[in-house]
Amino acid sequence: MTTQETHGPRQRPGGRSARVRASVHRAVGELLTEGPAEALTIPVVAARAGVHPTTVYRRWPSLAELLADVAASRFSGDIVVPDSGSLRGDLERWVTDVATDLADPDVLALMRAAVGAAGPDGGDACVADRHAQLTAMLDRERARGGTGTPSTEETADALLGPLYYRAVFTSRPGEPDWARGLVERLLAGRG
Amino acid sequence: MTTQETHGPRQRPGGRSARVRASVHRAVGELLTEGPAEALTIPVVAARAGVHPTTVYRRWPSLAELLADVAASRFSGDIVVPDSGSLRGDLERWVTDVATDLADPDVLALMRAAVGAAGPDGGDACVADRHAQLTAMLDRERARGGTGTPSTEETADALLGPLYYRAVFTSRPGEPDWARGLVERLLAGRG
Repeated sequence: MTTQETHGPRQRPGGRSARVRASVHRAVGELLTEGPAEALTIPVVAARAGVHPTTVYRRWPSLAELLADVAASRFSGDIVVPDSGSLRGDLERWVTDVATDLADPDVLALMRAAVGAAGPDGGDACVADRHAQLTAMLDRERARGGTGTPSTEETADALLGPLYYRAVFTSRPGEPDWARGLVERLLAGRG
Repeated sequence: MTTQETHGPRQRPGGRSARVRASVHRAVGELLTEGPAEALTIPVVAARAGVHPTTVYRRWPSLAELLADVAASRFSGDIVVPDSGSLRGDLERWVTDVATDLADPDVLALMRAAVGAAGPDGGDACVADRHAQLTAMLDRERARGGTGTPSTEETADALLGPLYYRAVFTSRPGEPDWARGLVERLLAGRG
């Protein structure tokens, strides 16, 4: 599959393959910043990246796959999981970082394009790492003996729900203070 | 502006204008059901609707405007505001209806395409009527003398946040039972 080809262990990190991937990813980011998502097509991306369209099609057979790949790469490892010593402290720092990220117009443009073109896979590419980070923070709290620790699902509903809803469906992404209020509400009355 | 042209009071409801609008809207729905959003272009929509592309461009200069119009029309007046006599009862019925709607693949396809192509306007077109309905239910509760009635913003965060987050970013839209649990959590400990 494409994933194997593009990210597989056989690929040398500094090789041509990695360079093409980087310039195609950069081209997608630039084009989404400059114009409407509907103008984005694989030939347009290829021209901007300075590669032949078939080179792009070989790795990413559709715009959907390309956008999901760009989103997965952009939204992985970009936010550090905090380790403040308490779940409340960790979540407060983390939602502040997520809210700040979601206020960036380039982030919003990529996220909307990925969701629009790649459906559930595009959505998943945007938030899979966020869910993994939540799980890491909640697991650490349980390891500390925290009682009444909420599940990842419940935490995602309470924090990522409003954060991403505002970012995608309204023209005013949430402020960090408001985001910390979501943590307050989630943890109110718990161990 | 386009909105004036398309929905203005001068347009006769049964005229050619209304027929063109209906067939273009229907064409968008069909095409989104059949194939990927990236295949959707104004010429393709026009061909399916049996009208000339310039007819479409005259009313909707971009795919973004067309999709926002289709979304606004699909997601307005489609859900009835319940009147059960209590805020809890109203919200429980209403989130059940919203959750059911969001589990429909055609609804998801239109919503994702509108968000992807039309950015914040597309998002707003999907949820403006939902916000108006929430406000109606909350205002009625206040008129009944309900104390501690949450604001529309807080209610939207607590209910629409998780509902739309799951629908757009995960492959499993929320079940009605889970959605009613969101109401429970929102109203816990309130007047």
